[in-house]
Amino acid sequence: MEQQPVAHIKVTKIHAALASEEDDQLAVEQPLEISLEYTAPGGRMQQRISITMRTPGNDEDLASGFLFTEGITRQANEVLDIIVLPGDANRVLVRLREDAAPSLPASTKSFVTTSACGVCGKESIDSIRTVSIYPPQGDAICLKAELFYELQNSLRRQQQLFENTGGIHAAALFDLQGSFLQLREDVGRHNALDKLIGAAFLDNRLPLNNSILLLSGRASFELLQKAAMAGIKIVAAVGAPSSLAVEVAKEYGITLIGFLRNERFNIYSGAQRISL
Amino acid sequence: MEQQPVAHIKVTKIHAALASEEDDQLAVEQPLEISLEYTAPGGRMQQRISITMRTPGNDEDLASGFLFTEGITRQANEVLDIIVLPGDANRVLVRLREDAAPSLPASTKSFVTTSACGVCGKESIDSIRTVSIYPPQGDAICLKAELFYELQNSLRRQQQLFENTGGIHAAALFDLQGSFLQLREDVGRHNALDKLIGAAFLDNRLPLNNSILLLSGRASFELLQKAAMAGIKIVAAVGAPSSLAVEVAKEYGITLIGFLRNERFNIYSGAQRISL
Repeated sequence: MEQQPVAHIKVTKIHAALASEEDDQLAVEQPLEISLEYTAPGGRMQQRISITMRTPGNDEDLASGFLFTEGITRQANEVLDIIVLPGDANRVLVRLREDAAPSLPASTKSFVTTSACGVCGKESIDSIRTVSIYPPQGDAICLKAELFYELQNSLRRQQQLFENTGGIHAAALFDLQGSFLQLREDVGRHNALDKLIGAAFLDNRLPLNNSILLLSGRASFELLQKAAMAGIKIVAAVGAPSSLAVEVAKEYGITLIGFLRNERFNIYSGAQRISL
Repeated sequence: MEQQPVAHIKVTKIHAALASEEDDQLAVEQPLEISLEYTAPGGRMQQRISITMRTPGNDEDLASGFLFTEGITRQANEVLDIIVLPGDANRVLVRLREDAAPSLPASTKSFVTTSACGVCGKESIDSIRTVSIYPPQGDAICLKAELFYELQNSLRRQQQLFENTGGIHAAALFDLQGSFLQLREDVGRHNALDKLIGAAFLDNRLPLNNSILLLSGRASFELLQKAAMAGIKIVAAVGAPSSLAVEVAKEYGITLIGFLRNERFNIYSGAQRISL
């Protein structure tokens, strides 16, 4: 019962007071319930961790990326397997090995409801912040400004779902020479990034400290925090950053670029890595 | 300790390989913790309901709009007052009257963590759906297509924070003649809509069945569900709708318009209310 990422519909298009019935495509949005199975002192436990509204596709990446960027799992070798529950493509179970020790929030052990928006469902304001296993450290990354000019065009060429629906976010990785590496798309930008990081997590490609992360929209707190969790050092967003996104970028020594459009962009932190 | 919605920063602007240091403005993003005080059989209770990343401003509207669109409170006269907690502008407490009976999710009475993203933190997929106290019913609303052409320009004229930061969502109400009524802005589009609905809730202006809701971005499931909770019949989005947004619109008899740009738009449901 695999779900498609795009739905085909009939739409009434209005243009200059003329109406026409046309075929169109929409980005599919469906809930995904992420559960975790692990070994506790009392035996095997299954626990619902989160529900997120996502575009179907790469659900294993999404689930494992979410668990990693939330600090719940740390290593791909802790993951035994990831199962889409029979009869329901909107439920996924991540099973950890016997000896894995997930970091579940202490006070909500019986029912964790942390969410994919990276913040919602957290117990308190203090618990919003996660701690990366890849702390800031010195590097000698130096990138020419021109390298960034082509990233957006390169992204668009890869972004099939956006092309079809006009309603989907993308997160993409490029290497430090500006070559495209990988893309994930979703109606939720946090999901797109979790899918991208989850794919790297499952492939043992973390930390992503030699990659550029390109975001198709704005850069919010949660996206920068997820990037920090994955050890990413360069984040470029097509849209605006928020105040807290800039703070997180500075805290983790991340170069944060915003308003990336053709030959223009703004640097909000880590300008030392960009040369003219 | 009131917080500002806009932060002033220094930014390095790159244009065609030239760099300049300039003053710029960012949309502020800060967590808001929403708590509820109510009378239970055992006496007065205080309970954290949600944390949402929001742009400071209209926090009372946001808190009450969130509680209403989540189906937790139903009437403004249940609200005794709304208090910003002393010493912390990021915590707000909504106090209900003695005789108010909030609808808290049954299984999470001890610690509700429902979130402002409308979905995150919910216990199960079934619990994602809320039920509006304003069920669909017949109406004779008929709007000329041209009325929609001017809405976006009208929104832009009102959208001060977007003007300054380029990084903020808006939700606005217009009357059925297309005249601007009210606007709320936020880094989170669900928050912008909760602020708008919360303002109407506190003013006893619900249901909003004689208003047009204009969304500055895409139309997702949660936004349509919140609109349905407020009895809104006409929703126009500048961006794309998702598949589930269209489903909710059809279920509640909402006219849903997307890709509203100058003299063009698409009608995804409720086309009978639009005349050429």
